[in-house]
Amino acid sequence: MPEFNAPLRDMRFVLHEVFAAPALWARLPALADHVDADTADAILEEAAKVTGQLIAPLNRAGDEEGALWLAGQVTTPAGFKSAYATYIEGGWVGVSGNPEFGGMGMPKMLAVQFEEMLYAANSSFALYSALSSGACLAIDAHASQALKATYLPPLYEGRWAGSMCLTEAHAGTDLGLIRTRAEPLSDGSYSVSGSKMFITGGDQDLTENIIHLVLARLPDAPAGPKGISLFLVPKIQVNDDGSLGEPNAVTCGSIEHKMGIKASATCVMNFDGARGWLIGQANKGLAAMFTMMNYERLSIGIQGIGCAETSYQNARTYARERLQSRAPTGTVAPDKIADPIIVHPDVRRMLLSIKALTEGGRAFASYVGQQLDLAKYSADAQEQQQASALVALLTPVAKAFFTDTGFDSCVLGQQVFGGHGYIREWGQEQLVRDVRIAQIYEGTNGIQALDLLGRKVIANEGVTLQLFTRQIRDFAALPGTPYANPLLEAVQRLEDVSDWLRAQATLNPNEIGAASVEYLHLFGYVAYAWLWARMADVAQRAREAEPAFYDAKLATASFYFSRVLPRTLSLEQTIRAGSNSLFELDAASF
Amino acid sequence: MPEFNAPLRDMRFVLHEVFAAPALWARLPALADHVDADTADAILEEAAKVTGQLIAPLNRAGDEEGALWLAGQVTTPAGFKSAYATYIEGGWVGVSGNPEFGGMGMPKMLAVQFEEMLYAANSSFALYSALSSGACLAIDAHASQALKATYLPPLYEGRWAGSMCLTEAHAGTDLGLIRTRAEPLSDGSYSVSGSKMFITGGDQDLTENIIHLVLARLPDAPAGPKGISLFLVPKIQVNDDGSLGEPNAVTCGSIEHKMGIKASATCVMNFDGARGWLIGQANKGLAAMFTMMNYERLSIGIQGIGCAETSYQNARTYARERLQSRAPTGTVAPDKIADPIIVHPDVRRMLLSIKALTEGGRAFASYVGQQLDLAKYSADAQEQQQASALVALLTPVAKAFFTDTGFDSCVLGQQVFGGHGYIREWGQEQLVRDVRIAQIYEGTNGIQALDLLGRKVIANEGVTLQLFTRQIRDFAALPGTPYANPLLEAVQRLEDVSDWLRAQATLNPNEIGAASVEYLHLFGYVAYAWLWARMADVAQRAREAEPAFYDAKLATASFYFSRVLPRTLSLEQTIRAGSNSLFELDAASF
Repeated sequence: MPEFNAPLRDMRFVLHEVFAAPALWARLPALADHVDADTADAILEEAAKVTGQLIAPLNRAGDEEGALWLAGQVTTPAGFKSAYATYIEGGWVGVSGNPEFGGMGMPKMLAVQFEEMLYAANSSFALYSALSSGACLAIDAHASQALKATYLPPLYEGRWAGSMCLTEAHAGTDLGLIRTRAEPLSDGSYSVSGSKMFITGGDQDLTENIIHLVLARLPDAPAGPKGISLFLVPKIQVNDDGSLGEPNAVTCGSIEHKMGIKASATCVMNFDGARGWLIGQANKGLAAMFTMMNYERLSIGIQGIGCAETSYQNARTYARERLQSRAPTGTVAPDKIADPIIVHPDVRRMLLSIKALTEGGRAFASYVGQQLDLAKYSADAQEQQQASALVALLTPVAKAFFTDTGFDSCVLGQQVFGGHGYIREWGQEQLVRDVRIAQIYEGTNGIQALDLLGRKVIANEGVTLQLFTRQIRDFAALPGTPYANPLLEAVQRLEDVSDWLRAQATLNPNEIGAASVEYLHLFGYVAYAWLWARMADVAQRAREAEPAFYDAKLATASFYFSRVLPRTLSLEQTIRAGSNSLFELDAASF
Repeated sequence: MPEFNAPLRDMRFVLHEVFAAPALWARLPALADHVDADTADAILEEAAKVTGQLIAPLNRAGDEEGALWLAGQVTTPAGFKSAYATYIEGGWVGVSGNPEFGGMGMPKMLAVQFEEMLYAANSSFALYSALSSGACLAIDAHASQALKATYLPPLYEGRWAGSMCLTEAHAGTDLGLIRTRAEPLSDGSYSVSGSKMFITGGDQDLTENIIHLVLARLPDAPAGPKGISLFLVPKIQVNDDGSLGEPNAVTCGSIEHKMGIKASATCVMNFDGARGWLIGQANKGLAAMFTMMNYERLSIGIQGIGCAETSYQNARTYARERLQSRAPTGTVAPDKIADPIIVHPDVRRMLLSIKALTEGGRAFASYVGQQLDLAKYSADAQEQQQASALVALLTPVAKAFFTDTGFDSCVLGQQVFGGHGYIREWGQEQLVRDVRIAQIYEGTNGIQALDLLGRKVIANEGVTLQLFTRQIRDFAALPGTPYANPLLEAVQRLEDVSDWLRAQATLNPNEIGAASVEYLHLFGYVAYAWLWARMADVAQRAREAEPAFYDAKLATASFYFSRVLPRTLSLEQTIRAGSNSLFELDAASF
């Protein structure tokens, strides 16, 4: 049966050895007060216990039972309620929250490790607090001091949870179409009416209150995306002293029956003159919501890594234990009826593919976390600004590439199990179903790719891209850098394709959407090549101290460069084929 | 809600126009008596009705309800029993069966179209008769005249069904390990004892009897795969007059809870001294079973095409109807709140990817069907022998490439739906779950790839491969052949890689398994390039007669060559990277 053991050694490798995070924290005053290497390790150890022992064991049963909707109320599966109560005692919901309002003020670079564990243990459970953390971020960044003081502490504590109410039946990707309305009331609050769908954790039985962040239109709002405002709408109204008052006019109309994340309630939420409060400026709601969405996008990306890690752990164990056929080069286990299947090159190919992409993803997530910390805490204006720009560039890559490769990894991890991979009790098929949504929600991966290529590369005239690729070139130029030549070739390919696309897009706007998904993958593989070269660099220097661990890093880097990075060849050629062949057919002839 | 309309025009295009099947049938006496162009079209029309109107409507509910196991008996979902009764009235189970025993004697090339419709409509339902057809083939090829006379007619009629009992808990891929035993009885029958698992349709409530084909060991059998014999074991014993007698000692111990094909019962079957009859020679059971397995492998491949076709039909409809955002080149539907998403290049990319791979697969399946017909019915010994060799070469490609691309296609078809793709009621996620098993059962796709590269290419010294590639070269050399240059480049790549691998394999046996999966994909993409060039050739000649239809073929061929075939570049480079990086890690360090 599946279990989950957090990859603590690998996480420490990334944090301490690859990125020297404690040294960074020490020079950023807001972090130096809260965290050092020992604190970080202690937090990771504790996180490993909570996720491995408390939350992971609820994953299979949660899938079978699912969240239920009865008489307008959502019930989470058996065990979720008490586990959630224990979980929030550790302060995990506010781990990177603002200490002024009760958050722990930990660096994002550390928080991403915890998030990975949480998704790896139980994606459905993870979502209930993931939305709270994102809501806090938006409230902290955009709401009034009074709203912050009232809502942030119980949200950080986990006594209350957050939700993110964007989608309506006719408005998913195209948020400019939303119809939910907000009428101002005399006391400065608003009356919010409309129906939202696909609302993760829109209702549940884990917390005393749920704080909905709702996109709606004011009466005089301009049409389209520039007429959308953001409102805070509690499930239960909050008295001035912070105690709970009357229920608000917010109801859960139903929940969806889904492919996976069945223990996570995906709700239709009806707002029927519900009382709410404006967050930030009128008609600037999309910008404020993007604070939350960008957070959630990285978080959802990490769902891809977490699910892949669990699938890998299970597949590795199975491949060591399952006896079937003999090794091509001769019997390995003569005392057994057959050899363990890990002797077979194709089984190793599958395991190494998952391993290389998962560990590459973990390093990339940590790098994005580092940039988020710099963007938030650096006192150096240029450093802060560059980090913000890098976060904007890399967030869509993280969301889409982690989840596309995470899905592929879960499918491979299922394949290692043969027929047993298709049987529910083994858990591998649940990971495929659970991770699949991560390619769709928080903006489909197609939308992430358009954001990357259209806005972050082409509209930006490649400025931030150069900032990123310059780091890669600088690293490759250092003496002794492993894989310097293939890395330089890869980054040159990315730059050439980017330049070519910038030129093409001026001729035909369809070229962006024609290339975007392949471009995002090309970007991801090049970024991982950089991170694998960095990991190999650290490993070859540190090798003597712990040969088995570092040799595994070196072997995985070797696999990445020889058998994964070549995917960039086809991506480049496909991109350069352009949009013509996509438009030879009219819609009726499909 | 999903529905299925058989792609009759596309099927006729492949049968009549690309392969000129009726002319072939006319020159093969065994087929000429049974089928001509009009009969074939009438059969396809009738098949479209049965699958679209009778069987497809049961697909969603069948998934929700699932097959049930109660008190040792399997119950199929509501509606399956009566639909099955209607279905068998059409004689569909015996459509390509031996007329001497009640089969319809139709060509395989026609039967593959019907199979595609059946899987497209309802994969779970399709499996109940797919196993019968395969069992009939093995019985017809290897059993005694008496067994044939007793068992084939009710199997062809569909009153009885077949099952295929290979796997045991410790013996999946490695059938040499099976332990089920058969003791000879004095009357020439055998007493079969053992436990089998993952038995599709091992029990059900659709037919009066189930005929299990069981692999077992005789008492004096040598160890390993050369000591396995094949037995026919009926669920209910059959009297000499063909009527049903006493129940046999065969019971269904449980059914699996699976990711998909939930309406198909996947059974643990216990044989407890059950009475059975030897099929073919003692200790030659694997060879006899391979008659059935090769049939099932093509059939399961076609499951990949069928599911992809349905996913495509649903996604196309959704993309034409769903309004969201405006086209990059300017508004297309000014009277609507937004443009249909089919205007977006990335949505077109997804749809065309499915379309190109599904139609390429249909043509490839038809080609394999043609070769099966020649292998069975040709009077020309050389033609017959070459066709048999081609079938052996192409069967693993068909099984694995159809299902790998079929799975990818279903995932893309789900992605087109955005969030709705993840919701069960829309049906797209069920297709992903249902098609996933096809990459695993009947020999995992990794095993198919080993069979292709190890046995069919390398052990065969490339002889049959050359037979295949020569056809491609001959076609490319004809005047006016479209895409002749990229086709020649692609076939050259396949030949070069094959030669290189044959040399590598002599140095290190691990090179086969290290390259096999990528090699099979390379093979598949090259084969589809040939078929797309052939389809484009037909389309450009016939264009005037029906421009909308033929232009769609030409546009899809253009998409295939410019945006799909480039995948072969990365596959080649990955193959040439060899096995080294797969063996740098020892098993403990994964």
